[in-house]
Amino acid sequence: MRLGTCRYQQQNYVFIEQAEYLLLPALEPRFAQAGWQDLQTLLEQGTDFQAVLNQTSSRMQVPASAVEWLAPLPRPRKNIMCLGLNYFEHIEEALNLTGKTAKKPAYPIVFTKAVTSVIGHETAVPYDPDTCSQLDWECELGVIIGKAGRKISPDHALEHIFGYTVINDLSARDLQLNHKQYFLGKSIDGGCPIGPVIVTQDEIADPQNLNLACRVNGVTKQASNTGYMLFNIAEIIATLSRGMRLEPGDIIATGTPSGVGFARNPPEYLHPGDCVECEVEKIGVLRNRISRA
Amino acid sequence: MRLGTCRYQQQNYVFIEQAEYLLLPALEPRFAQAGWQDLQTLLEQGTDFQAVLNQTSSRMQVPASAVEWLAPLPRPRKNIMCLGLNYFEHIEEALNLTGKTAKKPAYPIVFTKAVTSVIGHETAVPYDPDTCSQLDWECELGVIIGKAGRKISPDHALEHIFGYTVINDLSARDLQLNHKQYFLGKSIDGGCPIGPVIVTQDEIADPQNLNLACRVNGVTKQASNTGYMLFNIAEIIATLSRGMRLEPGDIIATGTPSGVGFARNPPEYLHPGDCVECEVEKIGVLRNRISRA
Repeated sequence: MRLGTCRYQQQNYVFIEQAEYLLLPALEPRFAQAGWQDLQTLLEQGTDFQAVLNQTSSRMQVPASAVEWLAPLPRPRKNIMCLGLNYFEHIEEALNLTGKTAKKPAYPIVFTKAVTSVIGHETAVPYDPDTCSQLDWECELGVIIGKAGRKISPDHALEHIFGYTVINDLSARDLQLNHKQYFLGKSIDGGCPIGPVIVTQDEIADPQNLNLACRVNGVTKQASNTGYMLFNIAEIIATLSRGMRLEPGDIIATGTPSGVGFARNPPEYLHPGDCVECEVEKIGVLRNRISRA
Repeated sequence: MRLGTCRYQQQNYVFIEQAEYLLLPALEPRFAQAGWQDLQTLLEQGTDFQAVLNQTSSRMQVPASAVEWLAPLPRPRKNIMCLGLNYFEHIEEALNLTGKTAKKPAYPIVFTKAVTSVIGHETAVPYDPDTCSQLDWECELGVIIGKAGRKISPDHALEHIFGYTVINDLSARDLQLNHKQYFLGKSIDGGCPIGPVIVTQDEIADPQNLNLACRVNGVTKQASNTGYMLFNIAEIIATLSRGMRLEPGDIIATGTPSGVGFARNPPEYLHPGDCVECEVEKIGVLRNRISRA
């Protein structure tokens, strides 16, 4: 199932995406309450989305063109947790190791992005040259936690996943480098496009075999496969939950492959008017335009 | 005014601390609703706390011994934002620069602590040797944002502050060092004691002249003054808000002075049974015991 959040007639609605249209269960009286304005609430309630889908009627359909896309979880309850340097070739380009062989580190790098940086599909990324002049793309597979847990073993980690999404871990490289710890450079307003939807885990048999790509103005900049992650999703969940409990609605960005702008020669950055598309196989294309703030 | 949150008769209440007792406005019918279970809501509503205090009656008093202390904001809406290496002598000890002179860096270091790590005054910190064996103390002045803003100038930064609190930025040094970025080592469950109260900004004429100290089992480990911060509070707020909007209820930990455990010779860490007290002048003592998980 493909779930998301949209704005329609001045209200937020959780939707189920179908081939030709979006189902908005909240438009049907029996689903009008019970959290159908807010996917976070539905996740916490352990909603049986399939049962709802089976009970839907055609009255609830609206065309995608009639809505404004929001991030599936427009206001996460905690910062987005992000893996750094989780693909071999990205380590090589980031550390300028061309010709050498990067080794898998013993421990993953984890940082966060502010909740205020989250925006949805087809939403403009505000560009403010006073804040940042080195805005860079990072296409990533996103993981949404469905079931709480602490000290989760890798063997059971995938049972805690609700679904998958696409995240563009936009990075203000100047801020990121100046401040050493990544948080500020990763947290500018609009710096975390997520979506267009969450695909539930039952539809993705092997999350470690998904092609992912980033295109800027139609030109492919990143193209890889989630099979090349250094720490796979099960290891990531085990690592995060070792000392910290995970909760429904938690969002994990699993790291980006090579091809980012700052490592190019010469470096390339995003500017007003640029269109960035991040695509992950079986999930879809997350598209955002950069626009002057 | 001194505001906090407690648990009393199976419910959360926002309280106003008086000399001998706590006022629980929600116990009075006219304040029973309107967010008096949740300080975050009251901050977002721009509540006039002084007006409420002026209208209170003695019926609402309970002794502090009758309640369980919670953090003033028990579940912040985003991760705690923390300054790293924001006191000269702490830079010297952390980087092993004895004899040399640390210079003020051009940019502050900022990282985050998970919202799930927050606990209140007099609450046990769970110690789990499987997760961390190098648990360290860090006494800090905490800043609570009251008024939203973006690109806040240092001249106007203090106008955005609701009040001040005490934060113990407990740090799992083994996790912090292994994972390079600080987030995981700073985010273990129970790793962010906050409180006992928030003191509103009108009661603290100069937040850059407050003594702060940390004691472990009664022995003073840290003793300094907020006047020795490298980046003062106005600069911190300006830096954070440069690309990221701040919101009511945001919590900023302004960095710790020298005297932490890992920099001692030999290093000292916290163990079950230890009692950590963090004190900031005009705010109070935040006391937590380490206990086996």
